[in-house]
Amino acid sequence: MLYEHLSETCLAARIGEGGLSDEALGRALEAAGPALAGLRAAREEGSLPLLGLPSRSDDLEACRPVAAAYRERFAEVVVLGTGGSSLGGQALAALAGAGTPRLHFVDNVDPETFGALLAGLDLARTGVLAVSKSGGTAETLAQLFAILPALEAAAGAGDLAGRVTVITEPGPSPLRALAERRGVPCLDHDPGIGGRFSVLSNVGALPAMIAGLDAAALRAGAAAVLDQALAAADPADAPPALGAALSVGLLGERRISQTVLMPYVDRLAAFALWYRQLWAESLGKDGAGTTPIDARGAVDQHSQLQLYLAGPRDKMFTLVRLDTAGAGPSIDPGPAGDEALSYLKGRTLGDLMDAMARATAETLARNGHPIRVIRLARLDEEVLGALLMHFMLETIIAADLLGVNAYDQPAVEESKVLARRYLAGEIQGRAP
Amino acid sequence: MLYEHLSETCLAARIGEGGLSDEALGRALEAAGPALAGLRAAREEGSLPLLGLPSRSDDLEACRPVAAAYRERFAEVVVLGTGGSSLGGQALAALAGAGTPRLHFVDNVDPETFGALLAGLDLARTGVLAVSKSGGTAETLAQLFAILPALEAAAGAGDLAGRVTVITEPGPSPLRALAERRGVPCLDHDPGIGGRFSVLSNVGALPAMIAGLDAAALRAGAAAVLDQALAAADPADAPPALGAALSVGLLGERRISQTVLMPYVDRLAAFALWYRQLWAESLGKDGAGTTPIDARGAVDQHSQLQLYLAGPRDKMFTLVRLDTAGAGPSIDPGPAGDEALSYLKGRTLGDLMDAMARATAETLARNGHPIRVIRLARLDEEVLGALLMHFMLETIIAADLLGVNAYDQPAVEESKVLARRYLAGEIQGRAP
Repeated sequence: MLYEHLSETCLAARIGEGGLSDEALGRALEAAGPALAGLRAAREEGSLPLLGLPSRSDDLEACRPVAAAYRERFAEVVVLGTGGSSLGGQALAALAGAGTPRLHFVDNVDPETFGALLAGLDLARTGVLAVSKSGGTAETLAQLFAILPALEAAAGAGDLAGRVTVITEPGPSPLRALAERRGVPCLDHDPGIGGRFSVLSNVGALPAMIAGLDAAALRAGAAAVLDQALAAADPADAPPALGAALSVGLLGERRISQTVLMPYVDRLAAFALWYRQLWAESLGKDGAGTTPIDARGAVDQHSQLQLYLAGPRDKMFTLVRLDTAGAGPSIDPGPAGDEALSYLKGRTLGDLMDAMARATAETLARNGHPIRVIRLARLDEEVLGALLMHFMLETIIAADLLGVNAYDQPAVEESKVLARRYLAGEIQGRAP
Repeated sequence: MLYEHLSETCLAARIGEGGLSDEALGRALEAAGPALAGLRAAREEGSLPLLGLPSRSDDLEACRPVAAAYRERFAEVVVLGTGGSSLGGQALAALAGAGTPRLHFVDNVDPETFGALLAGLDLARTGVLAVSKSGGTAETLAQLFAILPALEAAAGAGDLAGRVTVITEPGPSPLRALAERRGVPCLDHDPGIGGRFSVLSNVGALPAMIAGLDAAALRAGAAAVLDQALAAADPADAPPALGAALSVGLLGERRISQTVLMPYVDRLAAFALWYRQLWAESLGKDGAGTTPIDARGAVDQHSQLQLYLAGPRDKMFTLVRLDTAGAGPSIDPGPAGDEALSYLKGRTLGDLMDAMARATAETLARNGHPIRVIRLARLDEEVLGALLMHFMLETIIAADLLGVNAYDQPAVEESKVLARRYLAGEIQGRAP
């Protein structure tokens, strides 16, 4: 197994009345059966392109020369895009850590941040990747219009082709039109994969490959989770179905309206932000959904744990633990050390992280808060791919259990239209 | 005014039944009267050192030579500490942006992150600041033990005095003992100011001054807010009291259990994390409190807005808008541009950010979600100091309204003790 999914401490049988009863879990698991069957059918029919990604390689082949050229030619790569066009890439790139080229994910339109970035870049050695599924995202287009003149000034006007790459859906769009006008190559965004489910497609894979990661290994990890989940005869044996049943069961039976994802691994902080979009946008509709919250162990023990333990009982917790025992620099106080610090004797920083994660998990459970732990023996492309697929499946199954469409986001249209009308000067808002 | 506090769109009279009724607001405001009176008395008696900070300068004078030496001598400064010993400094340093020396806030004990930092530092030109109020925080001590050997190897063993500075309470502690053994200078952490309220003390001011900020201006901004709030004859005229009354009123009347702070300013992202600790640890006790959530505009429109608009009605929103109209690079599509992009014509990135913030505020209000907007004409030390004081006062008043002690955090002790026992090998946990 690429990860262990330990969820017994979500159950009333183990943690008392804050947990889920066996009956409620049983009902939710039974309801998850059709969702799993639906996923099986969708994979066979090819009607859900996400499920076909793990066994594809043609799209990765198309990314390979771009990634190789970017790695060879550029010291810095700016990835333009927002939401699902950026968070997956960020989650993956965090695994690679600092390296060359250095990746900058520009996911906002703050003029100060953008100005500081432009001022700090060596533009002659900078490549750009712009990602927008629809090709009409205002933020992404604005980012591109903001950087192109500077890039052209540094590189010479005729030379945009090798410096900029676009990922967008086939078919006409402002972004594609712009790319064609400037001779910039486009890779196709799969029209059947929404932004928040696109991390394993070229949207995540290309930045990952530019960062030096093995995209095929990511997909192999995802494939292992998908295969195991869809092969399970009992939903209880499919961790993503079990996770969805726990969430939806706890919401129904215990009014658990918030779900905290708390990795004790800095490299998974961006992953938690990716998850936050996935869960919120997929489930938050028709009055349904629970609020995803990203936290970071151990640091948030000194920020959020007081509330988690002693505030309202409205949260479930998912801790992600990486086996770090014995890793990292020594934290031994030395021979002259304080007696009060004898607990640090012979220990490393990784031991401390490990002890913090175990202690928080145990304390939450002792106090009757539903908590599951995902344990990782290692963290690499395969394991990260597995985690990504786990949570995408869990989200899809939870949507099915809640009776909402996992794939749309109808509510955000209103403010998009309004923003464009403000910009066009069509209306003077009464907004505060 | 250093900021405008626009909260009418939290009221039922304006946004319908999702908002707070005038009656409930009236009751909450009346209840806030004694809290304000208590703050007034505490300032006069000097019983709450936080309230005396804005008019002090002796402690800043003590920081000045340290900051000057660090700025002159070091290319990089590592700030060790976690929770309230780090978040305030991070919130302030974000205002300064990138500069020299470069500040690294190490607030976690991830062995991989720490190893990568150590490998990347020019240790001969690195200074360290270690902050722990109690002087016994395991994470901070571990960070220090992990970096000292490398620092000594690069600098020579006798030369720690000028390279490391400690901020900790007076009186014996492991951190003070270590500092004294190594000849490292200590600045006193005010024992009457808890970590999450320490941002305006030397805990925040010293890193801020190292980053080149004007700490006196921060305090001037804080003083203006404090003076205005305590001078108000009616709590409705004290924005922090009004904010607290809205939060507590919405919790009581509308079961609003989550409060989202969403600045449309990247430089305030760390401020939102600082607020998250402040609100959670101060109120999350005895089953009380609401969950603080940090979001970032405009990017989270593509991640959380769907849930905010169409999910459960359990949230109130605070948007922070900075006037960025006309700021930043042009995003004009140019003469050959797409007709579909005519709304970008003649606009800048700052115009887009501004339109996004207005559109989101308006859309949340139109859909009946309680939302207030804090508008900033500029963002500098004085304004940031004002915001920090606003939210500290709001939190203290909210605690009073909820009947909890704003200043303690009793629940986190259990997991701290447990972690130490795991490390000492005293127990084999049954934690997952």
